[in-house]
Amino acid sequence: MADRVLVPWVENRENAPEGVVCDVYDGTGEPGVDLAEVAFYVVPYGRGPRLDLIARMPNLRAVQLLTAGYETALAVLPDGVELANGRGLHDASTAEHALALILAAQRELPRWSLDQTAHRWEPHYTRSLADCRVLIVGYGSIGAALERRLVPNECEVVRLARRARPDEGVHGIEDLHALLPEADVVVLTAPHTPQTEGLIGAAELALMADDALVVNVGRGPLLDTAALLAEKGRVRAALDVTDPEPLPADHPLWEAPNVYITPHVGGGAAAFYPRARRFVDEQLRRWAAGEPLANVVRPGAAGRG
Amino acid sequence: MADRVLVPWVENRENAPEGVVCDVYDGTGEPGVDLAEVAFYVVPYGRGPRLDLIARMPNLRAVQLLTAGYETALAVLPDGVELANGRGLHDASTAEHALALILAAQRELPRWSLDQTAHRWEPHYTRSLADCRVLIVGYGSIGAALERRLVPNECEVVRLARRARPDEGVHGIEDLHALLPEADVVVLTAPHTPQTEGLIGAAELALMADDALVVNVGRGPLLDTAALLAEKGRVRAALDVTDPEPLPADHPLWEAPNVYITPHVGGGAAAFYPRARRFVDEQLRRWAAGEPLANVVRPGAAGRG
Repeated sequence: MADRVLVPWVENRENAPEGVVCDVYDGTGEPGVDLAEVAFYVVPYGRGPRLDLIARMPNLRAVQLLTAGYETALAVLPDGVELANGRGLHDASTAEHALALILAAQRELPRWSLDQTAHRWEPHYTRSLADCRVLIVGYGSIGAALERRLVPNECEVVRLARRARPDEGVHGIEDLHALLPEADVVVLTAPHTPQTEGLIGAAELALMADDALVVNVGRGPLLDTAALLAEKGRVRAALDVTDPEPLPADHPLWEAPNVYITPHVGGGAAAFYPRARRFVDEQLRRWAAGEPLANVVRPGAAGRG
Repeated sequence: MADRVLVPWVENRENAPEGVVCDVYDGTGEPGVDLAEVAFYVVPYGRGPRLDLIARMPNLRAVQLLTAGYETALAVLPDGVELANGRGLHDASTAEHALALILAAQRELPRWSLDQTAHRWEPHYTRSLADCRVLIVGYGSIGAALERRLVPNECEVVRLARRARPDEGVHGIEDLHALLPEADVVVLTAPHTPQTEGLIGAAELALMADDALVVNVGRGPLLDTAALLAEKGRVRAALDVTDPEPLPADHPLWEAPNVYITPHVGGGAAAFYPRARRFVDEQLRRWAAGEPLANVVRPGAAGRG
């Protein structure tokens, strides 16, 4: 039986190394291939990834996800099958969107959009990003990608993660309350875990300066929605993720003063695709060469490759 | 008679070097000082700067502007008075706004603003800035400040100015038509001169790719408004300056498809003030030390200082 790989993009098949037989499956409809032959399944990216197909792959040895989250896949993965995730593939897209949200809030782009709709030319002075102190909460690969984009904007970046990493200049979570009052902008890039849920609640918002900005590109539940609403615009917010999500049409957050919302579009922009394709190419090269895969989140049985 | 300097900010008086007597005049009302004693006038920043006061300063030896443009001041300046401009003071603010406009257009922020107004959560994939080729037309200090902000966004920058500077990798204007078809984003940062008026007209827009973006943070007349309207959205635009300006409420540009407008707010954001104050401090230091001023656009009579 051939050692087949199911890849999401034609380019991956075209770039496949010698010895690897690729079939393309983009996630729509039924794959045109005998699933029993699939040894390595790269799950196509999209809303509702076809994890159900895994149950029909008796010879599966590895699964590659294109998302960072992998809990759902882990739950359906048979014993012995290796699992790798898509950590890092959304960094450029998400960091770029975080920067866009910060600039939009500081330079009042939502106001200018509404003024354009009203044919209104009424300039006034706005805030800048330059000279701001930006606190990145959940400093990891997205935070680092954001920091690279912030530094040439002449602002100061302060790093904070769950555990302090003094050698990298990263504060631990125990410093959060001390750092909040000094931040002009607080960016949440952490994942959603029991530890991060409600990380920014009423007490944390109360510590933020008047007119400071909180930006959420992590997950909605990191920020307590009721606490933000209770601020009544004293702290500004730019949110790509919300709690609940999607935000119902009658939710008060839509009309909250100084709150700017985008509908969870941080990670899925054009920047994702070439990075994901190149990553899959590289994983196929590793697979063919018998090297360990990158981004393994659960090892497989011995003897792959 | 004392050698007095009229400065716009209290901080400049506080930081003034020994031997320089400063009075503060912020541009509102009448200055509370005998204008006949003023030797150095730092013209306050704002709409309608008080250049008329120059005629009442018989002992004036130098004028400092906080704008880059100086034609109006030159026209009222007596012979022998030195003139320095504010070149560079708006770079951070303008480059930041250009970046904000590019990101807003690529990530469709105006759409999300309107969707928020309608309480509509309808995510879709958008363009990115990453992987774009950005052509900066009029590459100078604002262009360089923008380039520094673009590079970590994982895009490619192409530089173009009036005259080629091969040692700096800057194309000359003669390469404009060859470079336009390959650009995803074209940013206009040039000043308004007879040479730059209508720099991007029907022929140039026709050379741009479908859905490419033209961004104008220079001056409105660089881009031919009628030619842009005739594109009917094929080329996208993000404009902080327009022609005419201010844009009348009944102008068709307000409703043109794929055109995003902000009301000439690029240069005047918060970033300007600390940079301008520091620059005035430094000019006062030079003045007191008898050193040549920076940014001199017309030398004065011999013997200053």
